[in-house]
Amino acid sequence: MTETPLAYLSAAQLTALYRARKISPVEVVTDALARIEASGDSLNAVCFTYPEEALEEARASEKRYMSGAQKPGMIDGIPAALKDETMMAGKVTTYGSLLYADHVAAKSAPVVQRLVEAGAVIHARTTTPEFSCAPFCHSRQWGVTRNPWNLAFTPGGSSGGSGAALAAGLAPLATGSDIGGSIRIPASASGVVGFKPPYGRVPSTPPFNLDPYNHPGPMARTVEDCLLMQNVLAGPHPEDIASLKPKLELRLDRSGVKGWKIAYSLDFGFMEIDPAVRANTLAALDVFRALGAEVTEVALPWSWEVYRAAATHHKALFGAWLAEYLDEREERLTSYARRFARDALATTTRDYLAGMEIEGRIWSHFGPMMEGFDLFLCPTLAIPAVPAEFDFSDPLIINGEEIDSYLGWTMAWPFNMLSRCPVLSLPSGRAPNGVPTGIQLVGRTYEDQSVFTAGLAYETALGGWYGTAATRPSLPF
Amino acid sequence: MTETPLAYLSAAQLTALYRARKISPVEVVTDALARIEASGDSLNAVCFTYPEEALEEARASEKRYMSGAQKPGMIDGIPAALKDETMMAGKVTTYGSLLYADHVAAKSAPVVQRLVEAGAVIHARTTTPEFSCAPFCHSRQWGVTRNPWNLAFTPGGSSGGSGAALAAGLAPLATGSDIGGSIRIPASASGVVGFKPPYGRVPSTPPFNLDPYNHPGPMARTVEDCLLMQNVLAGPHPEDIASLKPKLELRLDRSGVKGWKIAYSLDFGFMEIDPAVRANTLAALDVFRALGAEVTEVALPWSWEVYRAAATHHKALFGAWLAEYLDEREERLTSYARRFARDALATTTRDYLAGMEIEGRIWSHFGPMMEGFDLFLCPTLAIPAVPAEFDFSDPLIINGEEIDSYLGWTMAWPFNMLSRCPVLSLPSGRAPNGVPTGIQLVGRTYEDQSVFTAGLAYETALGGWYGTAATRPSLPF
Repeated sequence: MTETPLAYLSAAQLTALYRARKISPVEVVTDALARIEASGDSLNAVCFTYPEEALEEARASEKRYMSGAQKPGMIDGIPAALKDETMMAGKVTTYGSLLYADHVAAKSAPVVQRLVEAGAVIHARTTTPEFSCAPFCHSRQWGVTRNPWNLAFTPGGSSGGSGAALAAGLAPLATGSDIGGSIRIPASASGVVGFKPPYGRVPSTPPFNLDPYNHPGPMARTVEDCLLMQNVLAGPHPEDIASLKPKLELRLDRSGVKGWKIAYSLDFGFMEIDPAVRANTLAALDVFRALGAEVTEVALPWSWEVYRAAATHHKALFGAWLAEYLDEREERLTSYARRFARDALATTTRDYLAGMEIEGRIWSHFGPMMEGFDLFLCPTLAIPAVPAEFDFSDPLIINGEEIDSYLGWTMAWPFNMLSRCPVLSLPSGRAPNGVPTGIQLVGRTYEDQSVFTAGLAYETALGGWYGTAATRPSLPF
Repeated sequence: MTETPLAYLSAAQLTALYRARKISPVEVVTDALARIEASGDSLNAVCFTYPEEALEEARASEKRYMSGAQKPGMIDGIPAALKDETMMAGKVTTYGSLLYADHVAAKSAPVVQRLVEAGAVIHARTTTPEFSCAPFCHSRQWGVTRNPWNLAFTPGGSSGGSGAALAAGLAPLATGSDIGGSIRIPASASGVVGFKPPYGRVPSTPPFNLDPYNHPGPMARTVEDCLLMQNVLAGPHPEDIASLKPKLELRLDRSGVKGWKIAYSLDFGFMEIDPAVRANTLAALDVFRALGAEVTEVALPWSWEVYRAAATHHKALFGAWLAEYLDEREERLTSYARRFARDALATTTRDYLAGMEIEGRIWSHFGPMMEGFDLFLCPTLAIPAVPAEFDFSDPLIINGEEIDSYLGWTMAWPFNMLSRCPVLSLPSGRAPNGVPTGIQLVGRTYEDQSVFTAGLAYETALGGWYGTAATRPSLPF
């Protein structure tokens, strides 16, 4: 086995090496900062670094490991990157918007409080499209972020900088937030692991903590790291009324999926999916079969009507929020954010309620069906990749069919509608253009452990994703 | 002690007597049906009875107790009344509307499935205002329901028939549902116990299972019965995606409140409250002090703006739902339902989002504040009673001030906004007109046990509410 460079070690490997005093957090943070510097022009995944504070924290962490006087935290000394949407007290959070170019957060988001408490070293901030309202990653504020696997394509969005940073070895852990797929889309496109927890599992901030589609969550390169980070992020927080009690503590359960019943759908019965996505998803199903799971294709009573209901939900809440900027600030918005806000204006509360009715209807099938299965599996994206500069106004073709450019090419949004299901997105392979494809493991409501147990088994069966030079992206830096 | 008549025995007492084979469910159900018959003209709390099925179920229950071959359920043989909103398969559910006068439910609501599984005998259906959209209890479908304590007044709404039926000894248990106070308002006005669980604790039905203001829950005459019924109703249900896992099992914890810190507000800092409500709430606080709790008045940053945000939420979802009837069916609606639906039409998604922002803002104070307290206490209603025929168009005066007639005289709605807090409403005494007053015990999010432990201590300190003829309503039948 080729020796893995520092930048591609997992958080679990790093903390073991820290504990064994074989390497120091200072080396790791120094290395990550240097890689970020080098990656800047080609990838544009990171918009701020915090070298001084990060190195100071790394030295403090080193002391904790060396002195033994203070027990190191769960992810002590691990570089963690924050999406440019996750507020950190005293630091600029721009939300990818010219309007917030100088906006300094007064208070840290709950997830940041928890990362810091667990000893993580916040060394960088990752790019996001404006107001995280797109499934790709460019903005007038930050320009175009590119996919480490093929620079012509997007790493996905909205947590696109986080996805690209992980794949490029700029951080082993990064934050994401997912309101329509914004963790899972970049996890799929960037070939990393992303977890959309059940609504309420990871605390969020008002007012969108009250939107059941909204889920902050962890992103990493391994399932184990994602689990580790989720255990840091999860649990009730006094400032988020919707945060669930008690905290669910995930176990590193390697007992596998033998005898499990896994339902799957390749296309939800109505979507066009790319042949590479199909092939890689079928290959993933074969892995689960080989692990002893019983795999069954299921029909879902879904259609574009369901998709439109999800889009309506976004317009009703998120769009209404964006619509506040339709004043003298409008001309400073990026094109897709302006379009999103304008589209939202016509959405009525009746439309919103009609969307709730559709959510109720699809769950009335999916919920009882899932009583007979341990897991549901499907692709994360219907297409392996879209161009880095893609905008909602560009056409997008799959199998000769023009696809709705908003979220019509992603398969993440149904599980924002079915918001209490945990969903882990994992790499399923790569398309001919080198860009990764992903699968979603969807659990029954609040049964987070099942998707991690299955994810660990799958990851182990594949031998992981970044262990050798041949399985890592060929980077231009 | 005066012997308590069958009709005023609690479910806990009844099951003990059933187990001891001292009385039979058949006697109890027969008695309840006879009382309902007698109460009809004066109270109008019950709109349907199911004498044949109920007696059949009572006989089957009697057998379970007598034979020992099959273990009786948790509330086996206990008469339970269903609000005319809680669907039971094969039975008419009118929602208090002429439009649904002949509407037969195809399927039972999750709470009905659970009552039946636990052995309850569904013997009656209680009145509700049209579509449960009012805090009083009259409709064109069912006429006026009256308060057993004083027939001039309303028993409250929308679960008004349930409140009145409990107070009049027509059932020891009844279902309620609370979207703006509809369990707690009638619990207060009728002098019974009602529990608004945290959102998701008791399964509901689409689409309003997706409305975080909405909570089905138990109503009873004692805290113990309410706890018993809550343990029957609670827990995840495959058809309700928002139903929480795992099930929370409440304990009959009689350890009291010694050393507890209880925060209270008499008026939320902006409401007018009636002198009798004030006096009875202060007396209740004295009981908690005497039980060893430390009681502290707190200031809340609330105002009528908060109230308007709650009302906007109702208009946005519930109102949008009602607005579907604004076609040729409109003329058959009861006045308040028509007004509610018409008012809803102007509500925008931006208004809805602004309400979410206010919810976020009040929780950002209330949540962290409650980290320092075990419980929050306040009145349930600001006025002991309103006339039985009251409509939103009537003026309502407290302390010489005209009050918003919609929900401006209730203090229940903030905890629909703060929807993850459990709230138990208990009788706090009676006003000079004989109508009961109530208090709300509000717990931290998802901490249901605390409100029941405190409620049990309070109930025990008072010696209960229906134990003697002097403490029961003087009924005209």
